[in-house]
Amino acid sequence: MKIADLSGYLIYPNPQDKSLTSLVTGIDHTGAPVEVDVVTERGLTVYLNKQEIVTLMTLGDHPEYLALGFLLNQNMLRPDDIVTGVDYDEELEVAIVRTQRETNYEDKLKKKVRTSGCAQGTVFGDIMEKFDTIKLAKNTQVRTSWLYQLSRIINTTPSIYQKAGAIHGCVLCHQAQPLVYMEDVGRHNAIDKIAGYMFKHQISPEDKCFYTTGRLTSEMVIKTVQMRIPILISRSGFTAWGVDLARKAGLTLIGRAKGKKFVALAGYERLIYDTDINAIADEPKGAGRNNAD
Amino acid sequence: MKIADLSGYLIYPNPQDKSLTSLVTGIDHTGAPVEVDVVTERGLTVYLNKQEIVTLMTLGDHPEYLALGFLLNQNMLRPDDIVTGVDYDEELEVAIVRTQRETNYEDKLKKKVRTSGCAQGTVFGDIMEKFDTIKLAKNTQVRTSWLYQLSRIINTTPSIYQKAGAIHGCVLCHQAQPLVYMEDVGRHNAIDKIAGYMFKHQISPEDKCFYTTGRLTSEMVIKTVQMRIPILISRSGFTAWGVDLARKAGLTLIGRAKGKKFVALAGYERLIYDTDINAIADEPKGAGRNNAD
Repeated sequence: MKIADLSGYLIYPNPQDKSLTSLVTGIDHTGAPVEVDVVTERGLTVYLNKQEIVTLMTLGDHPEYLALGFLLNQNMLRPDDIVTGVDYDEELEVAIVRTQRETNYEDKLKKKVRTSGCAQGTVFGDIMEKFDTIKLAKNTQVRTSWLYQLSRIINTTPSIYQKAGAIHGCVLCHQAQPLVYMEDVGRHNAIDKIAGYMFKHQISPEDKCFYTTGRLTSEMVIKTVQMRIPILISRSGFTAWGVDLARKAGLTLIGRAKGKKFVALAGYERLIYDTDINAIADEPKGAGRNNAD
Repeated sequence: MKIADLSGYLIYPNPQDKSLTSLVTGIDHTGAPVEVDVVTERGLTVYLNKQEIVTLMTLGDHPEYLALGFLLNQNMLRPDDIVTGVDYDEELEVAIVRTQRETNYEDKLKKKVRTSGCAQGTVFGDIMEKFDTIKLAKNTQVRTSWLYQLSRIINTTPSIYQKAGAIHGCVLCHQAQPLVYMEDVGRHNAIDKIAGYMFKHQISPEDKCFYTTGRLTSEMVIKTVQMRIPILISRSGFTAWGVDLARKAGLTLIGRAKGKKFVALAGYERLIYDTDINAIADEPKGAGRNNAD
């Protein structure tokens, strides 16, 4: 497979990093021994100042971005907070985010149990209240030529997915250029790493779009809107509540984007058809990716 | 597509149930209007006696099985508990499980926040302690002919997945026969519904195997072992920690099962090669399923 030109990326996966996969011995369908690469899963306990917030199961790369992004997307870290440091201890699997502002989320942590628990990736309650107030940039466009170009570049960027499968990818993009490509066993972690990267490097969300390999569920829509990104694209399908929320927020929601095909179920007004689709090939088998999960 | 013989199932999906999907209007890659079926996502708040435990986001079918199975897999309901009733209120989206035994999980709920939160589907702590003590049935076999037959039947069973995509499926099987096929937007919910069904109908786990469309992560392995099912099969890939846990527990772990291919990474001793694989066709494109997520 031809490898994409990676020079336009700010950051992309590093499948050469040996800590992110393990070579495991098994047997195959013929009964022969086989060695397969499998992705790593490890704990990361996130502290905000003195308070233990959560233990995430993660691929393990970019723990500082993950810790920052998780706290941002839970509304525990504010966009205008001054972060005085992020301490990561690899052995203890702990990341401590320190802020100038004093923080205490005792009550919020209690509420989380009751409203979301361990079943899905999102906390509701105050997050939904904030969701209703967010206004997304109206003038940002998404051209179909950009969509096709993004898929081409992302599908030919070397990744942990190509090496070991069983992993999600999320990519922050500007027009036809992927910028920040993060992977993780947990799709929410991949998004949170991007949120952390954007916070650290002060990347504005208004003119960006977000590409994910995962389904367009309510949680994905909520996180994208919280991050102020006006366009969300996926190879996968939709859920009804995801569509509802995208329509309420005015988010452009494009799913089932494979080869020349896609379906837009919200925010059509940002979509510009500038491509002769007869010139776009159907996705050849094996050239794209199955979904991680 | 030829439809499977459904007569051997105890329960299977009902894609005719109009409450489980919505028809949504959008535009496609040609700019033409299009109507697509998308899966429903709704809340279900689970109470155990007087205590509110969790709000799950779910497809919405089989709320009683989901509530029972969730509580069982969280070790809040014990296999020998006498359930005096499960009350489900569709309008309030609440399911209350009542037991003869008095229950109080205040402390456990607090602990959950700290150890797992909303990032992944599993609570650790006391669940891992219990995991280490579980012994799986050693004499249960899985023949390759059963594997191929299970994939054939499951892939040709009418499902919400075939109608709307973006959903996971889990199937409890006995030898070559699928018995209990549950789907959900959350893979953990699909498993929990099966656990609830097994509890209610007193189905023994020792001679069964478990088929899932999702990845073989640590959480999937933990739940399967907790349910005392000795064999876990998936179309998807592995994570390193999932493999580690399966080996520790002596669980047979078979992944990447598509067409004639599969890889077993743990518990090989239960696997019997009884099929001439030259007689098994590769999976034709579109005949199987992509993964939900």
